[in-house]
Order: sequence, then structure tokens, then C-alpha cells
Amino acid sequence: MAKQEKEFVKEITPQSEDYSQWYLDVILKAQLMDYAPVKGCMVIRPYGYTLWENMQQRLDKRIKETGHLNAYFPLFIPESLLQKEADHVEGFAPEVAWVTHGGNEKLTERLVVRPTSETIICEMYSRWIQSYRDLPVLINQWCNVVRWEKTTRPFLRTSEFLWQEGHTAHRNEEEAEEETLKMLEVYRDFVENDLAIPVIAGRKTEKEKFAGALRTYSIEALMSDGKALQAGTSHNLGEHFARVFDITYLDKDGELKYVWQTSWGVSTRLIGALIMVHGDDRGLVLPPLVAPTQVIIVPIAPKKAQAEVLAKAQELYNELKEAGVRVEMDDREEYSPGWKFNEWEMKGVPLRLEIGPRDLQAGVAVLARRDTGEKETVALEELAERVPALLTEIQKNMFAKAKRFMEENTHRTDDYEEFKQIVAEKRGFVISSWCGSDACEQAIKEETKATIRNIPFHLQDEKPGNCLYCGKDGKHLVYFARSY
Amino acid sequence: MAKQEKEFVKEITPQSEDYSQWYLDVILKAQLMDYAPVKGCMVIRPYGYTLWENMQQRLDKRIKETGHLNAYFPLFIPESLLQKEADHVEGFAPEVAWVTHGGNEKLTERLVVRPTSETIICEMYSRWIQSYRDLPVLINQWCNVVRWEKTTRPFLRTSEFLWQEGHTAHRNEEEAEEETLKMLEVYRDFVENDLAIPVIAGRKTEKEKFAGALRTYSIEALMSDGKALQAGTSHNLGEHFARVFDITYLDKDGELKYVWQTSWGVSTRLIGALIMVHGDDRGLVLPPLVAPTQVIIVPIAPKKAQAEVLAKAQELYNELKEAGVRVEMDDREEYSPGWKFNEWEMKGVPLRLEIGPRDLQAGVAVLARRDTGEKETVALEELAERVPALLTEIQKNMFAKAKRFMEENTHRTDDYEEFKQIVAEKRGFVISSWCGSDACEQAIKEETKATIRNIPFHLQDEKPGNCLYCGKDGKHLVYFARSY
Repeated sequence: MAKQEKEFVKEITPQSEDYSQWYLDVILKAQLMDYAPVKGCMVIRPYGYTLWENMQQRLDKRIKETGHLNAYFPLFIPESLLQKEADHVEGFAPEVAWVTHGGNEKLTERLVVRPTSETIICEMYSRWIQSYRDLPVLINQWCNVVRWEKTTRPFLRTSEFLWQEGHTAHRNEEEAEEETLKMLEVYRDFVENDLAIPVIAGRKTEKEKFAGALRTYSIEALMSDGKALQAGTSHNLGEHFARVFDITYLDKDGELKYVWQTSWGVSTRLIGALIMVHGDDRGLVLPPLVAPTQVIIVPIAPKKAQAEVLAKAQELYNELKEAGVRVEMDDREEYSPGWKFNEWEMKGVPLRLEIGPRDLQAGVAVLARRDTGEKETVALEELAERVPALLTEIQKNMFAKAKRFMEENTHRTDDYEEFKQIVAEKRGFVISSWCGSDACEQAIKEETKATIRNIPFHLQDEKPGNCLYCGKDGKHLVYFARSY
Repeated sequence: MAKQEKEFVKEITPQSEDYSQWYLDVILKAQLMDYAPVKGCMVIRPYGYTLWENMQQRLDKRIKETGHLNAYFPLFIPESLLQKEADHVEGFAPEVAWVTHGGNEKLTERLVVRPTSETIICEMYSRWIQSYRDLPVLINQWCNVVRWEKTTRPFLRTSEFLWQEGHTAHRNEEEAEEETLKMLEVYRDFVENDLAIPVIAGRKTEKEKFAGALRTYSIEALMSDGKALQAGTSHNLGEHFARVFDITYLDKDGELKYVWQTSWGVSTRLIGALIMVHGDDRGLVLPPLVAPTQVIIVPIAPKKAQAEVLAKAQELYNELKEAGVRVEMDDREEYSPGWKFNEWEMKGVPLRLEIGPRDLQAGVAVLARRDTGEKETVALEELAERVPALLTEIQKNMFAKAKRFMEENTHRTDDYEEFKQIVAEKRGFVISSWCGSDACEQAIKEETKATIRNIPFHLQDEKPGNCLYCGKDGKHLVYFARSY
């Protein structure tokens, strides 16, 4: 038995038995990633990386359509630059990797491997920006970043990860705030429509905002184990960095002013979200819009009909490829059809196309959906039309299903006892009233491990009740959850 | 006067006066890059990065069409892994950046910031490859790498640069050699056809091969100052790494064998080549296939005809965009048409479209080519057809011109006195006979600074004369040049 086959027949741990183990089983068996010989780092294998490329491509298009251009800033940041913004350094210094030697020589100043690039980008912006004519500056960067994490989990929290970070500079608060919210909306649109993951958009609390930001906004998703995951953030940095990096511009009125800045990012963490929102006990379930392979053709070809079946399968492959479908053919002889079905289901391919001698005679093929398991028989001449339509349907259904799950697992209470019970037993989101104090937020976190995910936009016009914890007047309705 | 304008009117240093300064002037003024606050590192600005993205996209397509998939391996390599292959560590250890601390803690083992990824990839391949069924492994990676260079020059030699590195594993020498040459040919095709840079393809000498390789092949280009630039390399690694990383597979015949490996890469260095092959005293000249902007529309709109001219310019913009042309419009009011002409010429935009009130009346526009300076008047209704045709013509002409330059600057002699004179005075490539000894190669390098660029494929059937240096029987005809 081949190595690959041996590995496959080891079952995936069921979600209900051990969710964490299920997650690790799936990503390793689907060959999304592998552990690297460096603590907390990962190798993103071709199947996982192709998924990431598809995600990148679709998000990058949106980033460019909103007027941003990509650029590249250095990996290394001199220690003195990182030190400049007080909150920022406090937030990041404990978790950075330090370069101390180049070749055989000790460096005169230590370098940080970027954990995020605000500081080095601000240093450049202070050189580039002089006049209101230079604004807005709308730049994005796709790169690797490093945060020396104590506890790591593939895709969700790794010492090195891939992301995009947008960094913009504007004339005033209004323009900066508009940009911050526009990019949050870009993320919401991308995550909901392309990744089929419903999210709650809102503002982070003071305690949970980005180190150095004025205001942080986030989109928050719910994993199928009832824990939340921050799927993307967008920060209005105010003038905080401009003041320490001296980024000023001469405005139309002849006055020298500080720019207002934003930054925003999503990362390979989203791959973790995809797995946990859509996956099941048979493995991955990938949304068609980003799946590396959208359709896998499995010819069922007993020896005597082999030539005909393979010829027709090849014809269908060409036809679907022509129609712009990401299709692959599995004509390996050393594996049985049943084994192949399992493998491609485990890899989350949205649609399987089966064709055997009887189908050939009847002029049909069978399409099997990964999301529902449903099968349908389709006339061969209708495939090129039916397959794209079905992929669209699967995409929609995956979102609807995830949305239903999120709604069913969103609870609402201002009663702390009930809250504690929900958080401990049912999990999911809990909408509660909060007085706005750090103290209550901190106490709830310590007692229940639930944190405020964000102050959601969609409830901001609703009057809150009394604070869940202290009972005083509530200031906001917020989403609580235990989170990754 | 705006900052931008002030900067622009500082002239670019003429090539004939100071070629190095011309190079730096052009890249800074065209905003391809800027110096970073870290020694030897650069910021690739949006204009430079968009150029890189266009190059990436076209090369990535070829890499995928030849069966490779992208993946991502960690930035950090444990010291012990780098140490494994003796030649490799000797080649790279003196120029790596060392990470010694994570957060506040000293690491138990130092980490290298990857200078190239053979070692960490081999470590993974030794886990992944078991059977002949797992071969070939065809993986590519786009990433940043770091080499702590003493002397740096933007794009050509920087402490951090961006590149792609392919890493493949095969059953035997024949397949590995086929892959090595196939990827060299991919590079030749990309560099000649998309970057319009003619190259000499051939094999590197033992002395100049990659640290750890069995054989290295390269493509070599000639810059307009007569110095050569290695534009891409492809290595047959033999079993060297497989033996030290224990990458074995069970072959069909039941025997356990070492894999044969290859690696190959091109980098942001190619941007430097683009600048130096095509640029002139007015700035960049970019080949249409990779230019961020292919056509710049400059409306010439005196106040009284402004509305009409701008409306027609917008119409042409839409039409060209529709036709798939990367077109931009410069309708800034604060700059004169003449100033705009200079700026876009400096930025190397292949084609300028001018339209003024008289053109409008005559139903025409003027197209000005960056490569030749020629202007032609085209009827408006023919633009959508003429522009793409002209872009193709420009691409071809740029290659032909560069090829002519290379040929005119390729000399041939087996007389060492004449050789020295050519290298010192005329520069360019010199084709000479060489006995194959390290000693002669080294002596020539020390005495003339000229190195053997490669042993070209196209002369391998021709009988060499006597060795340029020692006068013994020549073994190869080789290309010499001073190089970057």
C-alpha cells in the first residue's frame, strides 16, 4: 500500500470527539500545510497555497478597485523606529524576532523582523508627503510578518504568517474614517461573498484596539465549535503616528498639518476560518469561488470500457476548462473510485463528476455536491451550463448554511448568570449590554474567558439595557464570545 | 512650485557623464524605489512594484504552464540545517542575517533569515517523498530573501530582495537535467520576449556555479554601459542535497534511491536590467508587455476648448481601456503639457497620446513613441486598433535594438593583449577560447576584472582555438565580460 493511501485510511478525528484534533487532522491530511522545523512556523503546501492565491487574487482586485496600489517595504525595522510610538512598541516589543548579526559582524543597532509595518512606512511617508497634493497616499503591501508567539496553531496563530497590510494617509479625520470603514466593508464583502463566511462588523473596544490606533474596527466570524475568530481589522490611526514620525503636509490654506492615517489587514488566518466554518467530519468543504479545484472528474472505467470512458472524460474536462471552470481529472489507476471519492471529499472539492460505461450509454454524467452530498444526473450536453450554475448554487448555500448556524448560535441576555451558562455550555455569540468600562470588560474576561468581539454597527441604534456585569446603565450592545 | 515639480527639473545625469549616477537618478526620479532606513535595503514604490507585479504575473503563468505549483516555506532556517551541505554553507554563511532572540528570550538555536531555501525545502522533501509515485515534485515559491551584502546597489544587489525560487525533485539525472534546461529556457523566453532583453544562455564554470550545485546554467544580458548582468540561473543540484538530507524514494524496481534535484530563480534584479538595457538620458524606456502604464493620454486643453477636449480624451480613455490597454489620463491642471511629456517620458511610458482642439476638429490624435521619439497622426476611429498594434511594434523594436547593441558589442579574440584592451576600453562581451582551468580563469579575473559569464550553448559545436591565457588547447569558447 502506498504511503499516501496508508495515511488516508487513518480516520479524521470527529469534530464532536476532539475539535482541535479534527482541525489538525484535516489540514495535515488535505495537505494544506505541514509543520516546519522552526518552532511555530508552517509550510504552506501547494494545495493550501493555491487556495491562498485564489483568495489573494480576489481581494487584491478589490483593493485596487478602491484606488490602492501595491508596494514593498523592508522586512527589517531598526529598533529605534519601533520604539517611537509608545503604545505600539508596548504592544509589539514582547513578541518580535531580533536580528543581531549580519554575516560575522554584530550590528550596531538591532533590527526587528516586521510584526507589522506602520513604523517603517511612516518613516517613508514623512519623506514623501509634503503638500495636500500628495494626499491621499493609498498603498497596500502583501508580505510575510513575524510575531514570536508562545502558543501557536496552524493558520490561526503562527510565528510567521502571510498577510496584506494597507497603509494610507489623508488630509483629515473625515477622510481617514471614511477609508477605515470603506476597507472594513471591502473585507466584509470579500469574506461573506467569496469565502461564504458571515461576519459581524463593528468597532473594537479601547482595550482590544490595535496598539497605536485611535479606533479599530473588525469583522468577527463564528467557527462551528462556537468560538469566534477575528477575520479582519481596519484601524483609524488618527494623528498618533504622524506626530511621532513628523508626517506633515502644507494644506491649501497654507497651514502645516499632521496627516491622518489608517491601516488594515487580513491574513492566512482566513484559511483557518474557512476550514472551521465549513468543514465537517469528512474533511474540508471549500467555497467554489476560491477552491483550488472546483470540479474533480472521476472516470469509473472497468477495463473493457476504459478507452471510451477515459476519452469522454477527457472531452468533458476540456469542455469545462474551456468554460472557465477549475477542473481536474483523477485517472490514477492504482486507486479505486470509492477511495478517490473519499480523498476529494476530504480535500473539499465542491463538485465531483462521475462518469462510467452506463452513463456513457445513457449520455449522462453524475454530479455530486460536497456541501449537501446530493447527487444529480445531467445530460452530457448540458454539463457546461449546469456545472457553473451548480457552483454558484453551492457558494450561496454554503453562505446561507453558515449564516443560519451563526444566527442559531447567537444568544441575547443581560443576565450574567445566564450569560455564564451560555458561554460555558452552548458557546456562540452572546449579545449583551455593557456600561463601557474597562473594569467590567476585564472582569467578564477573567471569569468567563469571553471577550467583547466588537460593538456591532447593526445594533448601534438600539437602546442597551443595564450592564451585564455591574448593572449600571448600558452604553453599548456588544457581541461577546470566547475566541481563537 | 510643487515639491514634485522642483524635483523633476533637476536634470538626470547623462549616461556618458556618470553611468552609475544616471542609474540612481532614474530610479529615484521615476519613483521606482527609495532608500530604506536599513542599510542596503530598499523600498519598492508603487510604480516599481506594479512593474514587478506585471513581470511576476507573466513569469508565474509560464511556471504554472510547465506543471509547477506555488507553495510557501518559512523565512527562518535553523543554523543546523544550513550547516548540512558543506559547499552550500561555505557559500552563504558569510552573508546571512542571524536571528538570536525571540521577544525577550535568547533562542536555543540561532536562525538564519533565508538567503535561499534549498535546505529547509530539502528537510520537507525528505518527509514528503517516499515512492517513485511521489515524483516529480515541482514546486515554486515567490518570496523575500536576505543576503547581508557589503556593497549594495538598488535592484542589482540589495540586502533584501524579492524573487521566485523553484525547487524540484526527480527520479534520475536525465529528468533533473531536462527540468534544469527547461526552466532556463522559460527564463530566456520570458526575458527576451516580455522584457525585450536579449540574452546568452549557457553553462557556468565550476568556479562560478551555485554553492552546492552539480551544474549551474545562466542567461546573461549586456547592459548599455557594456557590463554584463546575470539575469537568471538554473541549477542541477545532482544528489548533493539528497544525500545530506536523506531524500530517498523506493523506485519501481524495489530499490531505494536518492532523488535528483534542481533549483532555479530570478529576482527583482531584472528590474535593474530593464532600466540599464533600455533606459536613455531622458529616463526609463519600458517594454509595453510589462509597463505599468502603456499609454498616457495628455489632453492639450486651453481654457476655451477644455470641456470638449477633456470629454473626448475621456472617451478615448474608455475605449482603450475597453480594448485591454493599460491606459492612464493626465488631466492635472497645475502642470503644462510640456512638463507632462517630460515626466511620462522619464517614467518610460511606451506611448503618449496627445489631443488638442485642432486635433479634435480634424478628428485625429497624435501618438508619440517613447522608444524612437517618432510621432504619428491617427484618425480617432482607428485608435483602438492602432494603439495595440503600435505597442506590439514597440516591443519588437526594443528587442531588436537591444539585440543589435549586444551584437555590436560582442567581440572575439584569443589574443590576450587585444582582450585586455577590449575589456578596458570598449567593454561588452568577449568570446574567447579557454582551456578549462580554474587557474587561467582566476588570473584573467584578477588582471582584467572580466569573468567568464558562461559557456554558451550556441557555440558548443564550434572548435575553440588556443586558451586566451595559457595558450594550451582550448576546451570551450566562452563569454567574458566585466559584470554587475
